[in-house]
Amino acid sequence: MKRIGILTGGGDAPGLNAVIRAVTRKANNANCEVLGFQEGWKGLIEGITMPLDWSNTDSILPLGGTILGSSRTNPFKRESGVERILENFRRFDLDAFVAVGGDDTLGVADRLYREQAFPVVGVPKTIDNDLSATDYTFGYDTAVNAAVRAIDALTTTAQAHRRVMVVEIMGRHAGWIAAGAGIASGADVCLVPERPFSIEEVCEALKANRARGKMYNIVVVAEGATLKEGHTMTQAEGTDEFGHVRLGGIAPALAREIERRTGLEARHVILGHLQRGGSPTAFDRILGTRFGLKACELALAGDFGKMVALRGNSIEAVPLSEAVGEMKKLGEEYLAIIDEFTR
Amino acid sequence: MKRIGILTGGGDAPGLNAVIRAVTRKANNANCEVLGFQEGWKGLIEGITMPLDWSNTDSILPLGGTILGSSRTNPFKRESGVERILENFRRFDLDAFVAVGGDDTLGVADRLYREQAFPVVGVPKTIDNDLSATDYTFGYDTAVNAAVRAIDALTTTAQAHRRVMVVEIMGRHAGWIAAGAGIASGADVCLVPERPFSIEEVCEALKANRARGKMYNIVVVAEGATLKEGHTMTQAEGTDEFGHVRLGGIAPALAREIERRTGLEARHVILGHLQRGGSPTAFDRILGTRFGLKACELALAGDFGKMVALRGNSIEAVPLSEAVGEMKKLGEEYLAIIDEFTR
Amino acid sequence: MKRIGILTGGGDAPGLNAVIRAVTRKANNANCEVLGFQEGWKGLIEGITMPLDWSNTDSILPLGGTILGSSRTNPFKRESGVERILENFRRFDLDAFVAVGGDDTLGVADRLYREQAFPVVGVPKTIDNDLSATDYTFGYDTAVNAAVRAIDALTTTAQAHRRVMVVEIMGRHAGWIAAGAGIASGADVCLVPERPFSIEEVCEALKANRARGKMYNIVVVAEGATLKEGHTMTQAEGTDEFGHVRLGGIAPALAREIERRTGLEARHVILGHLQRGGSPTAFDRILGTRFGLKACELALAGDFGKMVALRGNSIEAVPLSEAVGEMKKLGEEYLAIIDEFTR
Amino acid sequence: MKRIGILTGGGDAPGLNAVIRAVTRKANNANCEVLGFQEGWKGLIEGITMPLDWSNTDSILPLGGTILGSSRTNPFKRESGVERILENFRRFDLDAFVAVGGDDTLGVADRLYREQAFPVVGVPKTIDNDLSATDYTFGYDTAVNAAVRAIDALTTTAQAHRRVMVVEIMGRHAGWIAAGAGIASGADVCLVPERPFSIEEVCEALKANRARGKMYNIVVVAEGATLKEGHTMTQAEGTDEFGHVRLGGIAPALAREIERRTGLEARHVILGHLQRGGSPTAFDRILGTRFGLKACELALAGDFGKMVALRGNSIEAVPLSEAVGEMKKLGEEYLAIIDEFTR
Repeated sequence: MKRIGILTGGGDAPGLNAVIRAVTRKANNANCEVLGFQEGWKGLIEGITMPLDWSNTDSILPLGGTILGSSRTNPFKRESGVERILENFRRFDLDAFVAVGGDDTLGVADRLYREQAFPVVGVPKTIDNDLSATDYTFGYDTAVNAAVRAIDALTTTAQAHRRVMVVEIMGRHAGWIAAGAGIASGADVCLVPERPFSIEEVCEALKANRARGKMYNIVVVAEGATLKEGHTMTQAEGTDEFGHVRLGGIAPALAREIERRTGLEARHVILGHLQRGGSPTAFDRILGTRFGLKACELALAGDFGKMVALRGNSIEAVPLSEAVGEMKKLGEEYLAIIDEFTR
Repeated sequence: MKRIGILTGGGDAPGLNAVIRAVTRKANNANCEVLGFQEGWKGLIEGITMPLDWSNTDSILPLGGTILGSSRTNPFKRESGVERILENFRRFDLDAFVAVGGDDTLGVADRLYREQAFPVVGVPKTIDNDLSATDYTFGYDTAVNAAVRAIDALTTTAQAHRRVMVVEIMGRHAGWIAAGAGIASGADVCLVPERPFSIEEVCEALKANRARGKMYNIVVVAEGATLKEGHTMTQAEGTDEFGHVRLGGIAPALAREIERRTGLEARHVILGHLQRGGSPTAFDRILGTRFGLKACELALAGDFGKMVALRGNSIEAVPLSEAVGEMKKLGEEYLAIIDEFTR
Repeated sequence: MKRIGILTGGGDAPGLNAVIRAVTRKANNANCEVLGFQEGWKGLIEGITMPLDWSNTDSILPLGGTILGSSRTNPFKRESGVERILENFRRFDLDAFVAVGGDDTLGVADRLYREQAFPVVGVPKTIDNDLSATDYTFGYDTAVNAAVRAIDALTTTAQAHRRVMVVEIMGRHAGWIAAGAGIASGADVCLVPERPFSIEEVCEALKANRARGKMYNIVVVAEGATLKEGHTMTQAEGTDEFGHVRLGGIAPALAREIERRTGLEARHVILGHLQRGGSPTAFDRILGTRFGLKACELALAGDFGKMVALRGNSIEAVPLSEAVGEMKKLGEEYLAIIDEFTR
Repeated sequence: MKRIGILTGGGDAPGLNAVIRAVTRKANNANCEVLGFQEGWKGLIEGITMPLDWSNTDSILPLGGTILGSSRTNPFKRESGVERILENFRRFDLDAFVAVGGDDTLGVADRLYREQAFPVVGVPKTIDNDLSATDYTFGYDTAVNAAVRAIDALTTTAQAHRRVMVVEIMGRHAGWIAAGAGIASGADVCLVPERPFSIEEVCEALKANRARGKMYNIVVVAEGATLKEGHTMTQAEGTDEFGHVRLGGIAPALAREIERRTGLEARHVILGHLQRGGSPTAFDRILGTRFGLKACELALAGDFGKMVALRGNSIEAVPLSEAVGEMKKLGEEYLAIIDEFTR
């Protein structure tokens, strides 16, 4: 094998640079070159490259984001997208390809492999940790720690003013980050998409906390948390079920409603991009490195159509098609922990 | 002197506990007791106390917030508020009082001192650093560092997606935190209340940056930043000058408008309470300690009607009335620095 | 069940307070009281207690160390130690006991269970991650992250002076922390007890790095790293194999020897207690919580003589005797990663 | 003016890159080029350059160290050192020079200015904050904060084991970092070069603390702290006054002696290079930026033989000769604060 191509697609996740570095190092050690393509599939379609070697990847482990840049370009949705990918693959004299990304990026990889025999290996990436094919994805640990640090810091100001602090966490469809952050920060209430809530129960829990003598509260809410069927937060005219048609975000609506119903002062913070940014944790740097090494090993061995995955403590190869399988919802154990601490 | 009372009022600021600890330690060393009153003036009006001594103040330096709690209660606006303060002062056998707070809290202290000969010493507190009577207030350094760490973290995700990241910073009337954070984080654009902006100039600056080859941008905007007279951001019907009547926050409006005008992807983050929370920096712990020691010295000496202030490198006593003087706007040097880096 | 006792023994590990909190919360939810014993087995021998409940455990998740204190007291080595434990168990009206500790603490628990039918459940704790009975122990993730942050920070000063920075990491018998920190920080050399080294190879690796254009180097060394058989670092008279009879620590000796042999400036830092201190990471808070909940479940069910363990992604109960089994050495995958990046 | 040269010399300090960036930006804005010289005076003697411009300085604010590298090379101690400097100044077509460094680097600049009319402007740099010509130097705030974070983290492990933790801090001749860290972390004992100590007093203070119920202690000691005249720590034969002839570091000796005299378990940590590394605080980034802008302004105006300095709140120009003046010892206020908290 002479030359491997690599790209990173979709939303960035801390740990992407660890993958890029590991693929480059292992390939170079096996006398194989690595060529980076910039901004996801767009780079391969348009031939925008960046040679990767020892010197420009050696020091990138502490960096969040991806030195290759990313995008959501889908070659199947661009005219001649697939043709140009195959053409550039030949033009740049590649023997194998590593695609790092979420279900969109890997879905493209899988289809290229199946329909065009494109020699590709996948590395799963989602900060949301909701891919069923792998136990953990890199970026998740960094996101949870960022949220926990933020909540720890918010605690003192909440306490000073005897406030309820509502913290909105990433997670539209699965509550992994919210549950991790909620459990690790000792939140008094933790709302996730997997378990619809009622505003009455939330307010009861907060009042019970105050009755025990607690002077402040933390409410963690995933952006995708929803109300139980038939429940609403407010009847205010012209608003949706959360009372926030024009106000964006579940956290402000929830804070307002808690304040109205309990008389406790409530404020909100939306962590947003802060959960995605910043230097990856040790866990994510190591997981990214392990994924990268295994992906490169598969590529060097010509074992295509696979993606790497963490299963228990070992890194395994599974069919690429699994990447686009079922979404991994929060498991029973985590839901039980939330129950134990917020009843 | 036998016993000093102390309270903390207004919005919390990292460093308040350093003041409380220093007052307690110095008073105790002089064989004087210290009695804390909870939740600002409310605690003195209602007689809600917390004895302070070596053991419950020794380890509080690293804590944000205030162990005494805070509130915005104004005794002049509550029936018999002033009478009850004077009564509790006698009832709890106090000889002097230390009030820690912003212009509201210290304004009350000043009026009590002038009208009632209330034996009080003030300690200035505002995270915004906009009190003209003192060069710096504690809490400001912590807020700026929190903002800078957040922006540093946002940089990598902005870079990965070639985005413009608009970061909203505290500061309704003065741009100290925004300017500090903008200068220290190397923001490409920094908008403060002291210098109204036009959306056209902002977009020009961003385009100039991209033309130089930069792949991402950071825009720092104080919550109180305003448009130049006669300028608007958008003509969309039913919206105010920022196009955000119902959408709260200048950052989302700015991000949307930048995206619309430049074609660059733009996102926003509102740091909010994250700037106020968390463990105080060394600077704020030391400044709080210095303020507390000096305030206690004044109280012990019976030198009332004063507040402590940082002037150059020394802690001085100035008339309490100065606390409620003019607001300190961002100076020429900082505005010139912003100009130098964003032209 | 009416009342459960709990103690924490041996060296402290970030995450202990998560265990204490989880045991207390789950027991309280089941209408069972929890009584803490201070400073390990010493507290149970001497009857030094601390009642645990909702209010004094609710906010302890972010705290490192253990609110119960710890010690290395072994009841089998103290006169009447065992008798007094049994007596106090009755005296304090306990129905079950949870012992949190490493192989010493759990070895005592196991012997008490086997010899005295002491109704105990164990929770494994070692920052070194070297217990074979569980995949991970809490404290390890915090230690690795602390080391990685330290090394990230040392990088810039190493770079400014074109230096080799030798960083000594905890781990007398197993190299888990050193390997984790070395891999995650991108160290150029990573020396662990599992793989004896020669000073010649270390210097070769550093010189090869410089030849590739790198201007600084990071060498991670576990405190228990040893030389290959027959190898020495220096022949200086009156010194041991590391040339540091009186100088304590492998890092200073290594730095000196590297400097002497390569002519590169070398410095050292011994991280020591910094790896153990500080707020636990999210991973360790969650693992401690999961361990505590499971241990309490076992205690409530009367399922004694067991300890909790992480196996893959689930928390399981295994015989207490496994805690004192074989030490878990660094596995092949990690050694292979080290090889890949330092050849 | 067409082209300005710049170098950074001596030990690195967080904030150096802010200076480099500010000089480059301001010069470029005035249509003047900037040429960096690598590794201090060595770079100018040997002509090792690095062109500086918008794109390679725009993003360096968050980086510790110096992108130019540093060294302790003194041209007056190298053959033809001065001649080659003057020659390279002409050869690279420079009009002015900015030298950033401590008393050594600026002493050279001053002598070159006086003896050779070398057109140089100085920027003071010392992490130790002991230059009398300026109120603060950048790097100091970062060092103090790094020490405070470390001590905060050590507190929990000290507490768990009821230990005395002795923390050695930089400062051979002046105690600024130790005093800052000691005051801000609430250390129980703080030993600085400016105030010789006796081991008996240290042990008394620790015992008094324990008598008040405190379960752990933090002792901060500057590396240059010394015993009072006539005092020794131990009479052990063959050792020096600290009992550590061969053991390097005052902290280990102090910990051993405290343990021997008080019976309390004591441990030590030497922070060393950790205080110098890492991303600069906002304060240091801003001070470095202000220094750089002012230095560039002086250079552009041809106002040579000066160095920039912080006086109160403003940046001023003072004669370069002041840089090599008296060392700034810890002032009375800080010593009084230490007394107040450790009596």
